[in-house]
Amino acid sequence: MAWTTPQELIDAALDGDRRALARMITRVEDGHPSAPDLLAALFALGGNAYVIGLTGAPGAGKSTLTDQLITLIRASGEEVAVLAVDPSSPFTGGAILGDRIRMQDHAGDAGVYIRSMGSRGHLGGVAAATPRIVSVLDGAGFPYVIVETVGVGQAEVEIVESADTTVVVVNPGWGDSVQANKAGLLEIGNVFVINKADRPGVSDTMRDLRQMLELGGDRTWEPPVVPSVATSGEGVDETWRAILDHRNHLETTGELAVTRRHRLELEFRRAMIDEFTARAEASAGRQTLTALLEEITSRAIDPWTAARRIVADLAEESNRGH
Amino acid sequence: MAWTTPQELIDAALDGDRRALARMITRVEDGHPSAPDLLAALFALGGNAYVIGLTGAPGAGKSTLTDQLITLIRASGEEVAVLAVDPSSPFTGGAILGDRIRMQDHAGDAGVYIRSMGSRGHLGGVAAATPRIVSVLDGAGFPYVIVETVGVGQAEVEIVESADTTVVVVNPGWGDSVQANKAGLLEIGNVFVINKADRPGVSDTMRDLRQMLELGGDRTWEPPVVPSVATSGEGVDETWRAILDHRNHLETTGELAVTRRHRLELEFRRAMIDEFTARAEASAGRQTLTALLEEITSRAIDPWTAARRIVADLAEESNRGH
Repeated sequence: MAWTTPQELIDAALDGDRRALARMITRVEDGHPSAPDLLAALFALGGNAYVIGLTGAPGAGKSTLTDQLITLIRASGEEVAVLAVDPSSPFTGGAILGDRIRMQDHAGDAGVYIRSMGSRGHLGGVAAATPRIVSVLDGAGFPYVIVETVGVGQAEVEIVESADTTVVVVNPGWGDSVQANKAGLLEIGNVFVINKADRPGVSDTMRDLRQMLELGGDRTWEPPVVPSVATSGEGVDETWRAILDHRNHLETTGELAVTRRHRLELEFRRAMIDEFTARAEASAGRQTLTALLEEITSRAIDPWTAARRIVADLAEESNRGH
Repeated sequence: MAWTTPQELIDAALDGDRRALARMITRVEDGHPSAPDLLAALFALGGNAYVIGLTGAPGAGKSTLTDQLITLIRASGEEVAVLAVDPSSPFTGGAILGDRIRMQDHAGDAGVYIRSMGSRGHLGGVAAATPRIVSVLDGAGFPYVIVETVGVGQAEVEIVESADTTVVVVNPGWGDSVQANKAGLLEIGNVFVINKADRPGVSDTMRDLRQMLELGGDRTWEPPVVPSVATSGEGVDETWRAILDHRNHLETTGELAVTRRHRLELEFRRAMIDEFTARAEASAGRQTLTALLEEITSRAIDPWTAARRIVADLAEESNRGH
């Protein structure tokens, strides 16, 4: 139980110890000193998880649909992890917590792992933390990872960019709602689910949605629109089939390899910037950076000259350490 | 006319030579080798421009309102620069160009400078280029800079983040339109103008807008909602007064100093990352970076270890150069 090294933590997690897995995720979230080692070791084990993003306005029925998808995946004998992200909540869980309670139906099932994340303590924001946590779950061996988030703003759009297939959940009459960032959701959705399809207006919404999607222009993939009543399980099989169809499309066209490579490039770039920033702060010291910012504010120095100085100092300092 | 040094360019621009000013902006846009020197020299001269952001859906009447505001500012004897940004257009001008033609009413006026920017050739995106161009216009001595953009997505929201006061232009019946990113616009607006207020539905729109703004919670500034008919000049004085009220609010509460400092901090951070990236590419070489990315894609190395290697190499290389 006393996991002293990153490797011990990883071994325990791979053995199915959920507390070890939770500990690893917390360390990656918090930027614990062991986080780069954990990420590096898990990265070598990963690359096999298929990541499904699930987004939509609050109350659209995302969690119920997630619940049903979990049941479906588990029935096929596969394990699944769910990462529920609420960028608007400063606390882990937050508003999403109520929904999570329903998912506790799967609490006794060792093949399901559910994790909530709020915006607290993520220096680069939840959008930056999401791909890293997905990378942990991937390395830990889950063949499916569902990333669920409330889709209203840019942060949420960035969160589902970690996904291979993005499912957008709407309701009948969706076109009238003010809050939803419709243009953004239309752009990112690979599969659209009109949930609560037992309510009036479903055919209008379906027609509107298809029209708006057609305006999107010539794409190689035409996003299917699936009506569902997630509470009764209606349309869940069709949703899963649409996800698998999209996966098949991405694999046969080679798009999956291209977007995954692009995602890794972003992660590499982010890692370089983190590494550079950490070194610059350690080398120049926060005090120097703050003092420089004061000088910039009083226009005694400009941001570009100050930046050149910091980067040059970093090289100097680094060399002295050798 | 042969401006060979950055200082010659700056001197000419300060003397009122608009071609010299245009040349400086192009160099900053294109990342010309002299750009950092230009930015540095102009930064020392700046800090005095008041920046007004103007955004809204296509056809809302932004350019007509800008036109009227130019006339009003010029009547007070002050100079004004307009930066019109269209992030959706790959070309400078693009869709915005038609609107610009109207602004040519001011073409003979040496106290007005108008510049259009599309998304072409901006490595970090127009959102990153905007504050730098505003910084050039500020350094060139304009007391007012208007940044006009089509407000539909996140890029546009970021563009107006360069502004001290953001004016959001809507039309009666705005609540029904699908494309507008309403939540985003509500968040960023300091002044709301309901343009084309001679059309039906203006009182409903005004009520809806006020209700939505109230939901925004306890702010120290309550955004005024101004009805206008920009084509006839109706409501333009009121709009300008609302902008000056907001400026006064920002100055008396000290908020202006805080947000400007924050903006400079972002610029400093961005400059450090640019400087670091340029050095890393020059030091490691693009080939090495591409080769590392190949290794990452095949999972032979992880992004974090690769990043550490690049930053360490940068320090080495930099030292050998000394």
